[in-house]
Amino acid sequence: MTRYLPILTWARTYDRGTLTNDVVAAMIVTVMLIPQSLAYALLAGLPPQVGLYASIAPLLAYAVFGTSRALAVGPVAVISLMTATAAGGVAVQGSPEYVAAALILALISGLILTVMGILRLGFLANLLSHPVIAGFITASGILIAVSQLKHILGIKASGETLPEMIRTMSETIGQANLPTIAIGVLSLGFLFWVRKGLKPILVRIGAATRTAEILTRTAPVLVVLLSTLTVAVLALDKHGVPIVGAIPTGLPPIGAPLFDPGLWSALFVPALLISVIGFVESVSVAQTLAAKRRQRIEPSQELVGLGASNIASAFTGGYPVTGGFARSVVNFDAGAETPAAGAYTAIGIAAAALFLTPALFFLPVAVLAATIIVAVLSLVNLSQLREVWRYSRNDFAAMASTILITLFFGVEAGVVTGVVVSLALYLWRASRPHAAIVGRVPRTEHFRNVLRHEVETVPTLLTLRVDESLTFVNARWLEEKVLEIVAERPELKHLILMCSAVNEIDASALESLEAINHRLSDGGVLLHLSEVKGPVLDRLARSDLLDELSGKIFLSQHDAYQELAAPSFHEGDKR
Amino acid sequence: MTRYLPILTWARTYDRGTLTNDVVAAMIVTVMLIPQSLAYALLAGLPPQVGLYASIAPLLAYAVFGTSRALAVGPVAVISLMTATAAGGVAVQGSPEYVAAALILALISGLILTVMGILRLGFLANLLSHPVIAGFITASGILIAVSQLKHILGIKASGETLPEMIRTMSETIGQANLPTIAIGVLSLGFLFWVRKGLKPILVRIGAATRTAEILTRTAPVLVVLLSTLTVAVLALDKHGVPIVGAIPTGLPPIGAPLFDPGLWSALFVPALLISVIGFVESVSVAQTLAAKRRQRIEPSQELVGLGASNIASAFTGGYPVTGGFARSVVNFDAGAETPAAGAYTAIGIAAAALFLTPALFFLPVAVLAATIIVAVLSLVNLSQLREVWRYSRNDFAAMASTILITLFFGVEAGVVTGVVVSLALYLWRASRPHAAIVGRVPRTEHFRNVLRHEVETVPTLLTLRVDESLTFVNARWLEEKVLEIVAERPELKHLILMCSAVNEIDASALESLEAINHRLSDGGVLLHLSEVKGPVLDRLARSDLLDELSGKIFLSQHDAYQELAAPSFHEGDKR
Repeated sequence: MTRYLPILTWARTYDRGTLTNDVVAAMIVTVMLIPQSLAYALLAGLPPQVGLYASIAPLLAYAVFGTSRALAVGPVAVISLMTATAAGGVAVQGSPEYVAAALILALISGLILTVMGILRLGFLANLLSHPVIAGFITASGILIAVSQLKHILGIKASGETLPEMIRTMSETIGQANLPTIAIGVLSLGFLFWVRKGLKPILVRIGAATRTAEILTRTAPVLVVLLSTLTVAVLALDKHGVPIVGAIPTGLPPIGAPLFDPGLWSALFVPALLISVIGFVESVSVAQTLAAKRRQRIEPSQELVGLGASNIASAFTGGYPVTGGFARSVVNFDAGAETPAAGAYTAIGIAAAALFLTPALFFLPVAVLAATIIVAVLSLVNLSQLREVWRYSRNDFAAMASTILITLFFGVEAGVVTGVVVSLALYLWRASRPHAAIVGRVPRTEHFRNVLRHEVETVPTLLTLRVDESLTFVNARWLEEKVLEIVAERPELKHLILMCSAVNEIDASALESLEAINHRLSDGGVLLHLSEVKGPVLDRLARSDLLDELSGKIFLSQHDAYQELAAPSFHEGDKR
Repeated sequence: MTRYLPILTWARTYDRGTLTNDVVAAMIVTVMLIPQSLAYALLAGLPPQVGLYASIAPLLAYAVFGTSRALAVGPVAVISLMTATAAGGVAVQGSPEYVAAALILALISGLILTVMGILRLGFLANLLSHPVIAGFITASGILIAVSQLKHILGIKASGETLPEMIRTMSETIGQANLPTIAIGVLSLGFLFWVRKGLKPILVRIGAATRTAEILTRTAPVLVVLLSTLTVAVLALDKHGVPIVGAIPTGLPPIGAPLFDPGLWSALFVPALLISVIGFVESVSVAQTLAAKRRQRIEPSQELVGLGASNIASAFTGGYPVTGGFARSVVNFDAGAETPAAGAYTAIGIAAAALFLTPALFFLPVAVLAATIIVAVLSLVNLSQLREVWRYSRNDFAAMASTILITLFFGVEAGVVTGVVVSLALYLWRASRPHAAIVGRVPRTEHFRNVLRHEVETVPTLLTLRVDESLTFVNARWLEEKVLEIVAERPELKHLILMCSAVNEIDASALESLEAINHRLSDGGVLLHLSEVKGPVLDRLARSDLLDELSGKIFLSQHDAYQELAAPSFHEGDKR
């Protein structure tokens, strides 16, 4: 029971000390989350209150079903961008259909995550290799930052790819609004300075590193307050500065998302991509934080936790959510001990939705855009490209292609390309396993690669050592390799497959071994196996291979060599 | 040059003896191929002459570009069924658009195969595990056999799935035609008897096994002759027996397939599936036959050969082709020595198209259906299900789901399901690699699994031996495994990763190792590596891991144990 409701684990020992710590952390995260929620809703093309709604019920759901003690869920940048792309594909931004599409995305995504969690399919997230995710996040960061430039300039622009964004911006650049630019650039400058310059100063004047970090993270609120006041006092909205305007006051609306089979099937693939990206990002944050306190998270249950959050979001006027990196770190640093901190944050945001929204009327959109730009630029890390290039050309190819496709063809094409490239490269490598023709190190029982060591071999006998499990991805390689060896050596009589590193032989590889066995017999060569591991041999005993095998099974490669190389061996002895 | 034009290899040494052998083989294959071509065209829903056309130019193209000495290409059963499904999805059977769709399928499929060959992407065929292919072929065989029953009964029926076929047949069963049933059942009975009963008789009366086999395979021609004569003499076509009717006389029409972007994109995925299934089937036949004479085929060049065949088919009024199992075996047994035998077969079929078609006017469709049923029932092998079940539950799941989806949702859904299931199962296994916590075998330098052997361990030190390469598919597993180990053991100070079986560490696994290193440091545990292979260590040296590693790299696990277990080790010594 505690497995499926992790709340039961920590709620039992919840005491006043934990409560205090959680409440303090929740207050800090709330202050950080208010401007972020509004900004990410803007990025997703949704009304600002949707960002607040997505920061209430999802947090409560995660507190019940999640396993991370410090993860703070809610709207995040990359998922907001993916939501904008997906919803924009089926409806016009600003229309009720667009908002409905965001709710459906959250619901489908929540259902996918929950089902994956219950079926323990978390391993499917392995479809995304690290270079692909890193490339995708970097490219998304660039796309997001560029997409927000229009708000800093006070112009209209659109597009889901870099070329489109640049083209539409260059067409409207003439309508740029000076006061908006001033607010935007000042906010950007201040926020960047806070990131880089404030923390060292705070530390120098005596603040603890952790406190300095937290103060730095909550600084955007200051920009929000100052800029809102400035716009209100100077009536800058009359001078063309776009403002957030009236945000409906009240708790999130409760209701089921629209059921429209056509819309659901159109949004299924985008929702799947959102689920996978959201899960991968969230679980890595949760694992990092858990490890710091020698705690563990349960990835399958995390899927359920995130699934419940998204379903909750879908029924309370939100949009897709996941665990956010920055806010989780703040939550952790501020001392959150249990997921209850998330529930208290939800209460804070609910209070904001009830009472604070009128105060945000004059908040300039440019400030929200500046918040987004500063947040996402920390995601952009092009130096990784150089590191990956140095380490592995294959991984570099996967990363670079994901970045380029994301920038030039959009986020969905980017993720799909990344998955396809990762898998293709993996299959390519897996289909050519490490293997070596081995010979005997003279006067020992050791067998080594003939290309790297001075070893004894016999023309009528060849030993192939395969260094990986035999499965359908490399079964064909094995067939070709063996045929090549036999075709090149007319004098060959015995082929030994040395299986010391083979942990598994699947049905495809079994079939290949049977084919190899028959083909070699037809060509007058006997097939032997040596050093087969116990479990592998047990399973082979359930097949026909052992009965049909033209040669023998040898416990050790040394035994095999002694028996099969015997004539030449004795000749060698005589000399 | 000979690499891309294999004809240059064998044409240089071509002599009179080889010519005689090839011509004899070609004559036998021609006799076998005439009824088969007509029958498979019927199965594909195409006019009968299309089957003949697909057996002319493709064979010439393969003779130039193919590497197998014995493979006989042309129309085959499974590809014909897949063509019917794909073309039926975009056009009505019997319409000119349907014939055009078949040509486009051949062209796209030819281009895909050629490009895969040039880019050496043959490894992508590894996407299909053996149980999936076997399941798909068995299910297709059942679908094909059932689809031909309507011709045996002389009724109309349609459908691409088993339930549809049975439903439409049961609706029209009342219109069954007695003379047609008589011809169909007699043909079926005779053909089955030829398969099972004729060969032993021929061998008993003194024929060589090989001759008996060849006579058995060409027996369908006898049925064609007898039934055509019977229908003509008794004028059974007037009594409702469907006949082939007028087949246009002449050589294949030469012309480019229709270029229609909408149709091309609709047919791309079916063409891809046809390419992959065709290649996998053909290459396995070619490898089996090559091995019997210790020859080799070149899989990448085989892709080019099959690609060229399909392109040739597309420009000469054919439809998708591949290497056929039965006819290749006959070709081989009849003594074909080079791909020239295929070219001579093409000449034979061209002669048939020019002169023989009028003689086929009264050929009953039921006889062609009987030929198909007898041919495909040899593909149906449900006993494999039992064997695979005994060997591996995972592989059984892949096979059974492929069979069920193919039967109930059609061939395209079947192949796609098979690929997805194969890959998912593979990833699932690959994401949970073999690994063991190891301890020292007392008084030795050997380290073994603590669960299986009596070994020494130390509470502050733990060694995890990973038995597979570390890549993105298992990187997450490694992170979780390590966190679990550390979370369970508060006294732990040192974790050693023993890498004796690690052939590769990709960028994702490197990232995970870096994350593990940081997380362990945060938790007060040092991470060490032991027995890292040379090439792996060389590559790690190009990353930051070695600088950042909290612990050390040990050449041998013994050294690591000696140094890190030291205090407890000495205590042990004193006792």
